[in-house]
Amino acid sequence: MNARMNDQVIVPEAELLSLGIKAFQGLGLPQRDAEDVCRILVMADLFGLSTHGLSRVESYGERLLVKGINPRPNITAERIAPALVKIDGDNGVGPVVGIRALEAAMNAARECGVGVAFARGSNHFGPVSPYSLIAAEAGFASIIGSNATTTIAPWGGSDARLGNSPVGFGVPNPGGAPFLLDMAISVAARAKIRNAFKRGESIPDTWATDKNGRTTTDPAAALDGFLLPIGGHKGYGLALLVDLFAGLLSDAAYLTHVKSWVDAPEEPQNLGHFFILINTRLLGSTEWLTRRMNDFASILHDSPPASPDKPVLVPGEIELGKLARQRKEGITIGADVMALLRQHAANAPI
Amino acid sequence: MNARMNDQVIVPEAELLSLGIKAFQGLGLPQRDAEDVCRILVMADLFGLSTHGLSRVESYGERLLVKGINPRPNITAERIAPALVKIDGDNGVGPVVGIRALEAAMNAARECGVGVAFARGSNHFGPVSPYSLIAAEAGFASIIGSNATTTIAPWGGSDARLGNSPVGFGVPNPGGAPFLLDMAISVAARAKIRNAFKRGESIPDTWATDKNGRTTTDPAAALDGFLLPIGGHKGYGLALLVDLFAGLLSDAAYLTHVKSWVDAPEEPQNLGHFFILINTRLLGSTEWLTRRMNDFASILHDSPPASPDKPVLVPGEIELGKLARQRKEGITIGADVMALLRQHAANAPI
Repeated sequence: MNARMNDQVIVPEAELLSLGIKAFQGLGLPQRDAEDVCRILVMADLFGLSTHGLSRVESYGERLLVKGINPRPNITAERIAPALVKIDGDNGVGPVVGIRALEAAMNAARECGVGVAFARGSNHFGPVSPYSLIAAEAGFASIIGSNATTTIAPWGGSDARLGNSPVGFGVPNPGGAPFLLDMAISVAARAKIRNAFKRGESIPDTWATDKNGRTTTDPAAALDGFLLPIGGHKGYGLALLVDLFAGLLSDAAYLTHVKSWVDAPEEPQNLGHFFILINTRLLGSTEWLTRRMNDFASILHDSPPASPDKPVLVPGEIELGKLARQRKEGITIGADVMALLRQHAANAPI
Repeated sequence: MNARMNDQVIVPEAELLSLGIKAFQGLGLPQRDAEDVCRILVMADLFGLSTHGLSRVESYGERLLVKGINPRPNITAERIAPALVKIDGDNGVGPVVGIRALEAAMNAARECGVGVAFARGSNHFGPVSPYSLIAAEAGFASIIGSNATTTIAPWGGSDARLGNSPVGFGVPNPGGAPFLLDMAISVAARAKIRNAFKRGESIPDTWATDKNGRTTTDPAAALDGFLLPIGGHKGYGLALLVDLFAGLLSDAAYLTHVKSWVDAPEEPQNLGHFFILINTRLLGSTEWLTRRMNDFASILHDSPPASPDKPVLVPGEIELGKLARQRKEGITIGADVMALLRQHAANAPI
C-alpha cells in the first residue's frame, strides 16, 4: 500500500491480486479458482469499475459463507457440436464459471472460426469488459452477456420481471486499442437516482417509472418504482434478448425464476451467461485489421466536438486509459475493501 | 387486386409475390434472384413494414437501371473455417446477397452448432426481421445486422459519420410464436420529426441534435441536424458495434466509406452484413424449448399493464399478428408501388 487518501488507498496491481487470491482461498476456493475470480475483479478495478471489482468480495463472501455459492464446484463442459459448448457451473463463483465458459468458447473458435458457450448454474460474474479484453487480446471479437436479478418492469408493465442484464462487445485491434463496450440496459443506474434524491433534484422522465409503471420526474417515486430501459421498447427488447440467450437457451433460470441473492443469499441463483466468440485472425492479416481499426477510430475522433472541450471518444478508451495508468501507478481501492480482503485472507491455508 | 381505399390496395400474397418477381426480372434479375428479393420484401409488407417492403422497388430499380447495382452478380462464398463463411456479393441486390449469406450461415450452424457469415459488396438488404423469421422457423436463434449510409453523428460529435444501422434478433419457439426484435439505433425515425414539424409541435430533446450537435426540441433544427441514438453513448456504442461487425470485419465499407445511394446512385455502396446463427435443436428437445419460450412469454404478459388498455407485449407479436392477418386477408400496399411493379414487370422475359 503506497498512499492513503480519505477512505481510499492506492495498491500496486501485483499486491492487490495476491491479497485477493488469498482472500478467496480463505473463503474456501482452490487456488486456481481464486486466481480466476481475481483476474476478472482486479481487471474491473483497473478499468475503474470499482462497484464490480474486488468490492464484490463482500457479497460473494457472504454467500460463500452461508453456502449460497459453492466454493468447490465440479464445473462441466459438454461440447454438443464442434462450435457449441454447454457449461454447468455447479453454482460456483460467477467469474470461475465465466472464465471456464470463455476459454471453452475461445477453444471452439480457434478450431471452427466461431465458438459459443452457454453457461448455467452460475452467479454474478463481474462486469463484461474484462472477458471482452481477454478475448480481444487473443484475437477474438465477442458478444457476451449475463442475466441478473429482476429489477425492471416489462415495457408497459408495472412489476419487476426482468433483470438489468449486462451485455458487452469487443473487437480486437492487433496494433492499437480494441473496441470495448460494456453496458446495462437501463438509461441510468439506480445510484444516479439516489444522488438526485439526496440533492433534492428532479430527474428526466426517461430514467424510471413510479411503482405503478408510470414515468416520473420525482426521484423518490422512481426509487420506489422501476428503472426504464434505453430507447423504451427497444431497450426492453434488448434486455429480453440477453435473458433469452443467457438464461433461457443456456437452461439456466430466466426472468422471475432468477432468485434474488439479497432476499435468499443461501439459495442458488442459477444465473446464466453466453459467450459468442469470432476468430478475427481468420478474416484477414493483423496488418489488415490494425489498419481498419485505427482508421475506424480516426474517423470518429475527427468529428468536430459539439463542446470544444469534449472530444469524441470510441467506446473503451476511458477504461483502457484507466487500466494503463493504474497498472503503472497502482489501483485505487476502498480501505474497507482492503480490510475485508485481509480478514478473509487470514483464513487462507498457508 | 381485391379492394381499393384511397391510394392503398389490398392484394393477395401469391399475386403480389408473382408480380414482384416479374418486376425484378424486368429489372434484369434471374428468376431465382428475383424470388429471393421478393421473399424478403413481401415478408416485410406482411409484417406491416411497408417502408422496407416492395416499395423499395423504386430505389432498387433506379440503381439497377443506372448500373449502380449489379442485376446478375457472381456471388461467392468462401468457408474460411468450419463455422465461418465470407460472402462477396459482387454488388448484387441486397436481399439476394442477404439470403445467400443467411443460407451459408444456417448450413454451417447445422454442422457446427453455430454458423457466422460476413458479407461484403452488398446493398440495402431490407428489414432484418424476415431473415430472423426464416432462421427461427428452421430452428436457429439469430443476431443479424447491416451497416447503412451515414446519417448519425458520433456521440458528442457534430457531423454524420455513422449509419442508423439496423440489427435484429430472433429466438425460435417450435410450439408458438418466436421472439423477433428488429431495430434501428435511433430513438425516433426521421419521419416522426417530419410529422412534428408539419403539425408545428416541439419534439423531446432526446430525439435529435441541431446541425452543431446540440440537442434540440425544434423539429426544424432537428431535420437540419442528426438523429440521436437510444441511451446516448450506449446506443452510439451499439451502432458502432453493428458497423464493426457488418462493415469492418466483413471487409466491406464502414462509417464514412459507405457511399450514399442518393448522392451517387450509380456507384457501388459496398455495404456489409453479418449473420450469427445458433442451432437451438442441439440445446434441448423441441418440447423443452417450447415450454420455456411459452413460459417466458406468459411471465411478461402477466405483468399488470400500467395503462389498462395496453397489455404488455413480447417483441415480434405485432408483426407476427399482421403477418397472419395479411396472409389470410391480403396485403395492404400503395397503389403507386403496384403501378411501378407493373411497369417493370412489363419488361420481364416471357
